[in-house]
Amino acid sequence: MAKTKGPSRPKAQTPKGFRDYFGAEVSARRAMLDKIAEVYHRYGFDALETSAVETVEALGKFLPDVDRPNEGVFAWQEDDDWLALRYDLTAPLARVAAQYRQDLPTPYRRFAMGPVWRNEKPGPGRFRQFYQCDADTVGAASVAADAEICAMLADALEAVGIARGDYVIRVNNRKVLNGVMEVAGILDPADPSRFEAERGIVLRAIDKLDRLGVDGVRALLGEGRKDESGDFTKGAGLDETKIAHILKFAEASKAVDTLINDLEGAIEEVFDASFEDLSSFQKAVRVSYEKRNEKPQTGNHARSIAALDVLGELIETSEEGQSGLDELAQIVDLLYAQGYGPDRIVIDPSVVRGLGYYTGPVFEAELTFEILDEKGRPRQFGSVAGGGRYDDLVKRFTGQTVPATGVSIGVDRLLAALDAKGKGPGRAQGPVVVTVMDRTKMADYMALVNELRQAGIRAEMYLGNPKNFGNQLKYADKRESPVAIIMGEDEAARGVVQVKDLILGAQIAADASVEEWKSQTQQVEVPRADMVATVREILARYA
Amino acid sequence: MAKTKGPSRPKAQTPKGFRDYFGAEVSARRAMLDKIAEVYHRYGFDALETSAVETVEALGKFLPDVDRPNEGVFAWQEDDDWLALRYDLTAPLARVAAQYRQDLPTPYRRFAMGPVWRNEKPGPGRFRQFYQCDADTVGAASVAADAEICAMLADALEAVGIARGDYVIRVNNRKVLNGVMEVAGILDPADPSRFEAERGIVLRAIDKLDRLGVDGVRALLGEGRKDESGDFTKGAGLDETKIAHILKFAEASKAVDTLINDLEGAIEEVFDASFEDLSSFQKAVRVSYEKRNEKPQTGNHARSIAALDVLGELIETSEEGQSGLDELAQIVDLLYAQGYGPDRIVIDPSVVRGLGYYTGPVFEAELTFEILDEKGRPRQFGSVAGGGRYDDLVKRFTGQTVPATGVSIGVDRLLAALDAKGKGPGRAQGPVVVTVMDRTKMADYMALVNELRQAGIRAEMYLGNPKNFGNQLKYADKRESPVAIIMGEDEAARGVVQVKDLILGAQIAADASVEEWKSQTQQVEVPRADMVATVREILARYA
Repeated sequence: MAKTKGPSRPKAQTPKGFRDYFGAEVSARRAMLDKIAEVYHRYGFDALETSAVETVEALGKFLPDVDRPNEGVFAWQEDDDWLALRYDLTAPLARVAAQYRQDLPTPYRRFAMGPVWRNEKPGPGRFRQFYQCDADTVGAASVAADAEICAMLADALEAVGIARGDYVIRVNNRKVLNGVMEVAGILDPADPSRFEAERGIVLRAIDKLDRLGVDGVRALLGEGRKDESGDFTKGAGLDETKIAHILKFAEASKAVDTLINDLEGAIEEVFDASFEDLSSFQKAVRVSYEKRNEKPQTGNHARSIAALDVLGELIETSEEGQSGLDELAQIVDLLYAQGYGPDRIVIDPSVVRGLGYYTGPVFEAELTFEILDEKGRPRQFGSVAGGGRYDDLVKRFTGQTVPATGVSIGVDRLLAALDAKGKGPGRAQGPVVVTVMDRTKMADYMALVNELRQAGIRAEMYLGNPKNFGNQLKYADKRESPVAIIMGEDEAARGVVQVKDLILGAQIAADASVEEWKSQTQQVEVPRADMVATVREILARYA
Repeated sequence: MAKTKGPSRPKAQTPKGFRDYFGAEVSARRAMLDKIAEVYHRYGFDALETSAVETVEALGKFLPDVDRPNEGVFAWQEDDDWLALRYDLTAPLARVAAQYRQDLPTPYRRFAMGPVWRNEKPGPGRFRQFYQCDADTVGAASVAADAEICAMLADALEAVGIARGDYVIRVNNRKVLNGVMEVAGILDPADPSRFEAERGIVLRAIDKLDRLGVDGVRALLGEGRKDESGDFTKGAGLDETKIAHILKFAEASKAVDTLINDLEGAIEEVFDASFEDLSSFQKAVRVSYEKRNEKPQTGNHARSIAALDVLGELIETSEEGQSGLDELAQIVDLLYAQGYGPDRIVIDPSVVRGLGYYTGPVFEAELTFEILDEKGRPRQFGSVAGGGRYDDLVKRFTGQTVPATGVSIGVDRLLAALDAKGKGPGRAQGPVVVTVMDRTKMADYMALVNELRQAGIRAEMYLGNPKNFGNQLKYADKRESPVAIIMGEDEAARGVVQVKDLILGAQIAADASVEEWKSQTQQVEVPRADMVATVREILARYA
């Protein structure tokens, strides 16, 4: 099509993949962030707000979207620097921890909340700007720091209204995966830089197990995979033996399920049989039972023990793998001992996290209740938060290892979850509307609305064209106003106003004439001096 | 310098012109935004949050920084689109008003708060990301809408802690300036597109009067101006007559001062002399006095009348100029009638606002108290908010004029102002620190800290290397902890903890040995069950 001459009008559109948030959506998010901040603060975390823009070199490239422009980051050149929008709140924290390392306390606990940007392929429900709400501890090597983050995450979820039982925090450890890769021959402890690219592909492939299925992951571990659109993703090029071992890890959750099913089928056996005849898993369950003198360990407690058992076999003699298992056991022990029990915390081998920078414990908070998808089919809500330990992110800047661990809550997903549970933003009450009957009395109408506002009542004067009174009523209706104030020439002369209960009067057609409107009993005439008290009375009815 | 081989370490630095905000700085801003939002909401404004990224075409180019890359905007190409970071919250509102015009109420009152980005030359104290907090009414042509914004701005400033008397809202009208330009011959009402470039230069030149002085503005109105660095800015190329008329407008404030000085020197004359002998200004003051039967109008009330008088002479017979003057008079009348009097609102010809999109009333909130500058010299704090009417911004998209008016509060400047008034963020109380005496008791220390947190007390367990107890005390000191909890093997065996008042104990050197530490009387031993109550008691002493 030939371009027409002259400047054309700009399109009034959000860029692809971005959206706007209105009224109650904004305040519901604000309220949620405030509640989470309160929990983070109580745990001793201090607020930090970095700018949206960082240098590309400071951010580093850790997103899994290697096939996107700038590897998934919005970036541009500015004089000699490449600048970019932050894609998470962790990379900027690493920069801050290095930049201010002389001044910050060690360990440094900080929380941050704000939007992040990812240059993802836009798609339905996928947005390129979204909120995160993070808390991290920098400078603490102890697994107690990881455990603390998990406990705090549980408290934060409950603070915003996710009931206990409606969520579970799944914990795993990257060192275990590294142990598995060592056994598979794609990690050489003597030279960790070998096979780095292959391990990246393996990590991202396992993280996609849910979406791609075993065959998809197998293809990515081998030569590669063609998706439905025909796009080809290069694989890690591993041989069959290596693939088989990695797949055992990818499917460890299934192995856990099998153990649990066996256990639950014959829980008595575990306690009646001779100790030597038991599997390592059954032994662990029995020891745990005898140590605590509690009920037989089933459910998530047994699941955690089973996970340690299954993973233990996959790491064989890998030292790193063993250290990962020990950390997992410690974290869960610390949490269970404090009452963050198996109803909330479970070891789960399926958690790997897609980001490349994790080095130790990783965790995800999953909501366990079902919602209906777009097609009305029930499905689990899924993950709303995740995090883990990343001991090398600060080292990028300083050359010295600085242990760090943290969590990021996906604010928008969590809001969607609350919405699905019927705890989303309700219909907010609109403002009182002072209608305009007489254009020459603008100062008087403003005085009325001012009086209401100074009394703390949300109020507006109608500011559109006052000629058509019906439009003013339509406006009040659209604003969900509980009350309208009416003062014509006659009322003004007598020093009174009409106070109209619009909630009671909702049945009146929006195009009713002024006369009809006035004849309704939901309307009272009061002296001007009583206006505020009368409005308060009506608002109290609907509070 | 030759580049060394191998990847070098990234620099841990914020990009030029960006900064980080820590702890109390973040929460002070949050608290201020919450207070402003409360006022905006009470006035009937609804929250809106748009994304940081817009298309360049939707944003338009209205910044005065025409000599900067992308005219002062951070922009980059993305597939076929040019995207940019928003430079204010008004341009995105215009896009929203056009995009959702079928669904939004008319008028649409909305507020928005968040960062904006400007690609300005970095300099001391000039940041390229800063917060704005805006409220706008879209779809209301009435000056009552402008007056409402001014009243709300006054309420917002007082809500955050700026006392009445410490600020004034200065009001002017772009139509008056247009009238002046019409008289000067650079605005042709029959063809507004003529001289558009010249008028842009005039506008920016007048806006810089404070900084450049009369000679600098005169140069910009004529051939151009070379600044100290030798950079040349092209001028509007006006002839002497035109320049002289525009300079009369630029210096109208001085003319107002002269009138006021004359008036205050001879206030009796105004009331004793024959009416015909008075100047138009003196007549207006006398009429106003007689109408209201008040004290003789001096101060800001007389200043507003004088401004109307001075501007009236500059616009001669311009219709647009006259309409601007009428609006100014109406706005001030509406506000004064509601109690937003001359102590808070004044007409001031020096207010023009740098942005290109204003079409009617413009206003600025100025803080009138003095602060000390970097060199210790007193100066007025200056402007913290501004806005005005922009009837054509939505028209860019739709082709139809949509009247709109609004205000933007410069959040960071307002925070700096509160700081200067001693109302900035105080030193926040740090968390209770549970020290670690025995590495094998991590679960017990976590249980202690958990107990404190569940009781709503901000608390931390020391997560650094616990070997050196002195470091733990240094940490508590850096965190400004009010209380430390100590539980060694002995205390644990006896079921007690040591509760240490660190504020009383501040004089103890941070490197004191554990023995010295324990001998202090500021420390009490209590049963574990009494820990929370004891901590509460100590915290209450310093609340």
